[in-house]
Amino acid sequence: MLYLVGLGLGDAKDITVKGLEIVKRSSRVYLETYTSMLTVGKDKLEEFYGREVIVADRDLVEMEAEEILKEADSTDVVLLVVGDPFGATTHSDLVLRAVNAGIPYRVVHNASIMNAVGCCGLQLYSFGEAVSIVFWTDDWRPQSFYDKIKKNHSMGLHNIKVKEQSIENLMRGNKVYEAPRFMSVSQAAQQLLEIIQKRREEGEEPELSEDTVCVGLARVGAEDQVIRTATLRQLGSCDLGPPLHSLIVTGQLQPLEVDMLRLNAAPEALTHLEA
Amino acid sequence: MLYLVGLGLGDAKDITVKGLEIVKRSSRVYLETYTSMLTVGKDKLEEFYGREVIVADRDLVEMEAEEILKEADSTDVVLLVVGDPFGATTHSDLVLRAVNAGIPYRVVHNASIMNAVGCCGLQLYSFGEAVSIVFWTDDWRPQSFYDKIKKNHSMGLHNIKVKEQSIENLMRGNKVYEAPRFMSVSQAAQQLLEIIQKRREEGEEPELSEDTVCVGLARVGAEDQVIRTATLRQLGSCDLGPPLHSLIVTGQLQPLEVDMLRLNAAPEALTHLEA
Repeated sequence: MLYLVGLGLGDAKDITVKGLEIVKRSSRVYLETYTSMLTVGKDKLEEFYGREVIVADRDLVEMEAEEILKEADSTDVVLLVVGDPFGATTHSDLVLRAVNAGIPYRVVHNASIMNAVGCCGLQLYSFGEAVSIVFWTDDWRPQSFYDKIKKNHSMGLHNIKVKEQSIENLMRGNKVYEAPRFMSVSQAAQQLLEIIQKRREEGEEPELSEDTVCVGLARVGAEDQVIRTATLRQLGSCDLGPPLHSLIVTGQLQPLEVDMLRLNAAPEALTHLEA
Repeated sequence: MLYLVGLGLGDAKDITVKGLEIVKRSSRVYLETYTSMLTVGKDKLEEFYGREVIVADRDLVEMEAEEILKEADSTDVVLLVVGDPFGATTHSDLVLRAVNAGIPYRVVHNASIMNAVGCCGLQLYSFGEAVSIVFWTDDWRPQSFYDKIKKNHSMGLHNIKVKEQSIENLMRGNKVYEAPRFMSVSQAAQQLLEIIQKRREEGEEPELSEDTVCVGLARVGAEDQVIRTATLRQLGSCDLGPPLHSLIVTGQLQPLEVDMLRLNAAPEALTHLEA
């Protein structure tokens, strides 16, 4: 059996009891390390599990999936994934290989940023399509993510930017990977502010402005998580500390959502917080 | 401290190790019972935790929150919530009461249907706003949920219907609650099929049809979970067993998504599964 076990978002103890039992009894345990990161490393996991954990980098999961699946028809093999196992499609690929090889699989779910983001008090039901913000370079500054955010916002939906990693690297499809880079809330906000300014100069009535209420989140689910409700301008110069970060652009707010956002709001943002 | 601890979606062992430790050491443990349901009841949880669990019905959480929060400034109190604690806004209300009373709170996240639904192989990033389908009565047959689904679909986004419970009851805001009712995939599909038929008769070019590829899910995360990819017509007459059910109306499909959907596809749906 191939088990895909979610680790959740914080530390070693965010694995489920079911997941931990599977880890303890399986023949081999792999830790997928390239689509996201936990606040603790392999060593802490090994200590907590009392057993060896094999780091599975991108090559191993994608190119040498056979190694992971070896003997998984007769023994139990685990792939540990930060968050929930189906946050990234790469694991669909491994599942398909397993099924094609006649190996059964099972998923042990856990929290991921896609649902844990509800901790800021915004209704999960009112989020539109998730939007990825790519890292700009000097000569590559696409704006398509802004148009997606605009579309969600014009429908009153909240936006979430969840992809902290550099997309162009993930998509490149060759074996030269850069070290993972994680976009901070302030970087994301700065790129949005620049687009808003540019669009205004081009005569477009901007759907968003420097005063749009946003929520910056860092290390959701960890002991030192940060939730900061502020204007987009304020978030452009904030420092929320180490990764992972997420940025929410709020849409139409309900009264209870406003009350929750006030719990973590910067003073300037309070004046903009009206349902 | 007030702890909001997510139970995940399956059975008692889907709690996280961190959550279980908190349950074991807290003074009082409440189980919220009205926004969702686990496949196991209070007795199984008490047996697994080795301690008493107090059932918190809607009155207790909403009207008598003081009882839950009693002495929570000096001792630890837990509210267990199926899925993730921030799936339903009712818990925002409890958090606000705690904060106003000077009681700190902490959240232990877990999987909820909002992220676990990725197990069918559709990318979570490609889901639009979640849509609730209400139970029709003889003289109350609103169609607004169909228009939301249409809007998501026209943008190529997947739809998820996640609200299994009767919305009109949840919203009624008085103390006469009906027993929870859970909408099945076939009921949801039948209501959609009826609206499609009606819109066609009214001359509207339907965004969806009887042949739209959908995914019916039942008891996601449990041992006996069911994932069935089929046309909307097929799902209108399916029986996926006991609750909870969710229905996905697929949007624009990527090749890897198609491959994953094929794993659980009904024969007729296969012919419609093209990326």
